[in-house]
Amino acid sequence: MAGTPTSSSRSAGDGGQQLGCWCWLPSLPVRATAPASSANLGPGFDALALALALHVEITVEPASGLVVTSEGEGAELPCDATHLAARIAVEVAGHDRLAVHVRSEVPVGRGLGSSAALAVAAAAAAGAADPLAWGHRIDGHPENAAASVLGGLVAATVGVAGPRAVRLALDPDLSFVVLVPDHELPTRQARSALPTQVPLADAAFNLSRAAMLVAGLGDRSLLSPELFEDRLHQAARAAALYPQAPALLEGLVAAGALGSCWSGAGPSLLAVCDGPEAAASVQAAGAQLLIAAGLPGRSLLLAPDLEGLRVEP
Amino acid sequence: MAGTPTSSSRSAGDGGQQLGCWCWLPSLPVRATAPASSANLGPGFDALALALALHVEITVEPASGLVVTSEGEGAELPCDATHLAARIAVEVAGHDRLAVHVRSEVPVGRGLGSSAALAVAAAAAAGAADPLAWGHRIDGHPENAAASVLGGLVAATVGVAGPRAVRLALDPDLSFVVLVPDHELPTRQARSALPTQVPLADAAFNLSRAAMLVAGLGDRSLLSPELFEDRLHQAARAAALYPQAPALLEGLVAAGALGSCWSGAGPSLLAVCDGPEAAASVQAAGAQLLIAAGLPGRSLLLAPDLEGLRVEP
Repeated sequence: MAGTPTSSSRSAGDGGQQLGCWCWLPSLPVRATAPASSANLGPGFDALALALALHVEITVEPASGLVVTSEGEGAELPCDATHLAARIAVEVAGHDRLAVHVRSEVPVGRGLGSSAALAVAAAAAAGAADPLAWGHRIDGHPENAAASVLGGLVAATVGVAGPRAVRLALDPDLSFVVLVPDHELPTRQARSALPTQVPLADAAFNLSRAAMLVAGLGDRSLLSPELFEDRLHQAARAAALYPQAPALLEGLVAAGALGSCWSGAGPSLLAVCDGPEAAASVQAAGAQLLIAAGLPGRSLLLAPDLEGLRVEP
Repeated sequence: MAGTPTSSSRSAGDGGQQLGCWCWLPSLPVRATAPASSANLGPGFDALALALALHVEITVEPASGLVVTSEGEGAELPCDATHLAARIAVEVAGHDRLAVHVRSEVPVGRGLGSSAALAVAAAAAAGAADPLAWGHRIDGHPENAAASVLGGLVAATVGVAGPRAVRLALDPDLSFVVLVPDHELPTRQARSALPTQVPLADAAFNLSRAAMLVAGLGDRSLLSPELFEDRLHQAARAAALYPQAPALLEGLVAAGALGSCWSGAGPSLLAVCDGPEAAASVQAAGAQLLIAAGLPGRSLLLAPDLEGLRVEP
């Protein structure tokens, strides 16, 4: 982390909320980079996530007033004080005399954790001591933010003291294909498609699949498509919002994936593949599957991001 | 495994069910030993289990007719063809010209996987090729049987081809205390106390806790009591059947355990401890807790069983 610990009394005029506590005041400008992420991974609903090598880079530096600029994915969003990166940077810094520049490769509203990546990168670039907590505040559940902070495969939960997360073993020979439709599927809409009550047997089903999946993602020889099976969210979301999803998921497995699942709340879909060659075949098949489904979009071959959040002065 | 593969036509007269397939005909007598297990481990309902160093040993040898003998725990059960070990040995062998001897350290009906341990040991001693499948048939879910077969910490699920299980990393410095009340709590009764529907949020809660718990059981520095929290089974069972359980669980943590949970469907309770010294303190406190709760029983300090099923000719 850039910056040095200093009493916030120095910046008391900038934001009353920091008064009387210790915080990090970064030596601006600071650039923070965070990866996209694919949450849930089938049975691991609101529990597991995987960082993928698409990145959000945010630079925060001193300015006479708030300036927000943006390029790449999400550049069409309003570049003003309402931009998520600006809101977080201002809140972390305690003032708005900042220039916030966002450069993103992460498609927005596609289930790739763009908000969480943006939040943790903005918080880190503005000097936050706990970017995971900021990412969690945005999403309400911490697994995307955890992947963006820690990189790799993560488990996350919310404890009494806030979000907690840990890296899990990830087989280095796994490669990933993500089908990214051009249309957005807002997380709020995807969540409202879910039932509030589920059969206990389905909860147990997901628990046992998720526990096995964690082992399989650490050792791909244990993986098979059935370990990605889910009974808590995918079918309900597909029925309400995304009728093409089941056939796309099956097509990815038929093309050679070790398993497939929704990426977060969709509409992106993830295929887990046995190395880059298999992934290349699955990627090609995925492009055809999107066409066959009548869904404009991209089929991306992505490496996992193993670094997570990076902060450079 | 003892025994050699041979066509079952050799034993066609012994049991029609094996006709036309290949099976293992053991060179009798065979002795099989399987450990007890503690399933669920809090959030990992029907998914996780841990093998513990209490054992069932079953010897199967040729006889002119079925003879069942039993010593140790469960010796009060009828020693006849209805005994679970006898039923399984006879079904596996395809005839009843067997002497089945059971020697058990695993208390019956206490949530320590005695049926699963008995089933996998009996099946193995009688020459079954897949003792896990036999253990799964008894319980309907495979995690106890998986721990008895594989040893250590396991995840298990039921796939299209039957039960599947895998060993997970277990921190070698963890020690375990089990409070074993003298009274039984039949699994069927404990299961009937559970709701058929649960909030989706509770299912997600358990998923995220279980994923973190798996990491923590592999690296005890990550463990804390909240990772053992469960919202799917413990509270419902306590309210219906075991009002003393919450205070006992809290008492184990107050005595220094890294976490505590029900062992399977109870009434045994498991405390996970940071090494044998901490476990000794927790064991002593556990004995006092049982007294304070008015529950006759034992407080046992147990090592994990890392070998699982052993078969000796």
